[in-house]
Amino acid sequence: MEQRNFCIVGLGLLGGSYARGLTEAGCRVTAVDVRGEAIRFALDKGWIAQGTTEDARPLLEQAEAVVLGLYPHALIDWVRANARFLRPGTLVTDVCGVKQAVVGPVQDAMPEGVEFIASHPMAGKEVSGVEYADSAIFRPANFIITPTERNTPRGIAFARQLAETLGFAHIAQLSCAEHDRMIGYVSQLTHAIAVSLMNANGDPRLCEFTGDSFRDLTRIARINEHLWSELFLLNRDALCAEIEQFEASLTDLKEKLQAGDEEGLKDLFRRSTARRAMFDR
Amino acid sequence: MEQRNFCIVGLGLLGGSYARGLTEAGCRVTAVDVRGEAIRFALDKGWIAQGTTEDARPLLEQAEAVVLGLYPHALIDWVRANARFLRPGTLVTDVCGVKQAVVGPVQDAMPEGVEFIASHPMAGKEVSGVEYADSAIFRPANFIITPTERNTPRGIAFARQLAETLGFAHIAQLSCAEHDRMIGYVSQLTHAIAVSLMNANGDPRLCEFTGDSFRDLTRIARINEHLWSELFLLNRDALCAEIEQFEASLTDLKEKLQAGDEEGLKDLFRRSTARRAMFDR
Repeated sequence: MEQRNFCIVGLGLLGGSYARGLTEAGCRVTAVDVRGEAIRFALDKGWIAQGTTEDARPLLEQAEAVVLGLYPHALIDWVRANARFLRPGTLVTDVCGVKQAVVGPVQDAMPEGVEFIASHPMAGKEVSGVEYADSAIFRPANFIITPTERNTPRGIAFARQLAETLGFAHIAQLSCAEHDRMIGYVSQLTHAIAVSLMNANGDPRLCEFTGDSFRDLTRIARINEHLWSELFLLNRDALCAEIEQFEASLTDLKEKLQAGDEEGLKDLFRRSTARRAMFDR
Repeated sequence: MEQRNFCIVGLGLLGGSYARGLTEAGCRVTAVDVRGEAIRFALDKGWIAQGTTEDARPLLEQAEAVVLGLYPHALIDWVRANARFLRPGTLVTDVCGVKQAVVGPVQDAMPEGVEFIASHPMAGKEVSGVEYADSAIFRPANFIITPTERNTPRGIAFARQLAETLGFAHIAQLSCAEHDRMIGYVSQLTHAIAVSLMNANGDPRLCEFTGDSFRDLTRIARINEHLWSELFLLNRDALCAEIEQFEASLTDLKEKLQAGDEEGLKDLFRRSTARRAMFDR
């Protein structure tokens, strides 16, 4: 890609995986993080050329491109305090899982000539920290770019090249509102369901009887409470609407069950089977 | 195990996997099925020594042990028509995923001296038919024995030895009512959720954005409508109770979200994380 000098702000699982992937692709990568161990770990691994826990300014001034690997609220705070150190022409992106609540404030805080193009790498693990960073997590994953009317073709091309360099399977472009509705259904609703299923029954003896299906449905019930409470609350309206749509679908099934409506149940099963089969093509 | 001569009635995915596993363990296995192709396939593979689509009587008379690999209603019908051909001393078990609705009628229909000991192998695939039979599906799985007051130590020991021979990871004993409550939560509720999640949103473009979590939660939405409508309806009360407990848990989460209750959400996430972690020990 055109930009070769990156600074990663927030060297967690995603930021660390970006650092690793970009260094492997031949870029020069620096990093800023509050955890000294994170910086030392990435330096030891050779995933970053330089890093700091203190004054970000020198690293930001060198960067052609910046990736903000921070949680949403921390991201907005960081940008308000530090964006003034970015040189004109710098391209900035993020990794946030919600967009409407983040993109406006961040674009507002950018200095003249610095472009923030939002994006969302739909990749992760059930663990956090640069210690688990692995650029292989991007290979099967989706990368969503969410431009606003303040973005330029140059900014959008940068986000696309970044995703290509990191090896994402699929790159798409959505508005921030479309992104948040989509993510409310395919990601946040599934986490809300997994948590609620896990919490619905407190009988510890059930552990010994769980099969694959229960394990699959609750894998993501191991959840980082700080990140996910932010993501849920920042996408509250879209997520509530998705929960209510799901509740209606489950109530429909329950009513058919209570009524002994065998044909009605079979219809639901045929519909879900046909829809799910589309994913396995 | 003590019994060496088995007859499998219903040579589907599970019946076929029993035939295969028992033959591999050195037993002599015969089979009865309505599908001629199923019998020919298993004969070709060497998983059965003999099979028929017609008169089951000669095979039943030779058998020391019979495994009924049929759907619940077909199982009850078959037993009422054919149990009289079983010799005194024969041990009979099944593979049904519901117990209270099945075990009483089946035990009622057994002739003097023939013991039906119910069991449930918690194993399967998203496909059906002997063509997919594989005794490896038992290795990570649970085997539940559900004796009634009509069962003997000999019958229970037979079921346990059968599970050991087939290589199940875990063997447990529950009452029929306990089994049906447990299965309502860990299996049927998860299928009800997966189907409802898949049916909640009909936007076909969502396919391209689904990540691992959505795929995990909907894998079992590909469901055999004939089998699962029987299983759901035969366990209606237990499953409705589990759906309602889950709905209450999801409503709790939704209300905390709507109220902006960050600490409340974090509590839910911490609880689900701790419970799920018990499974990964």
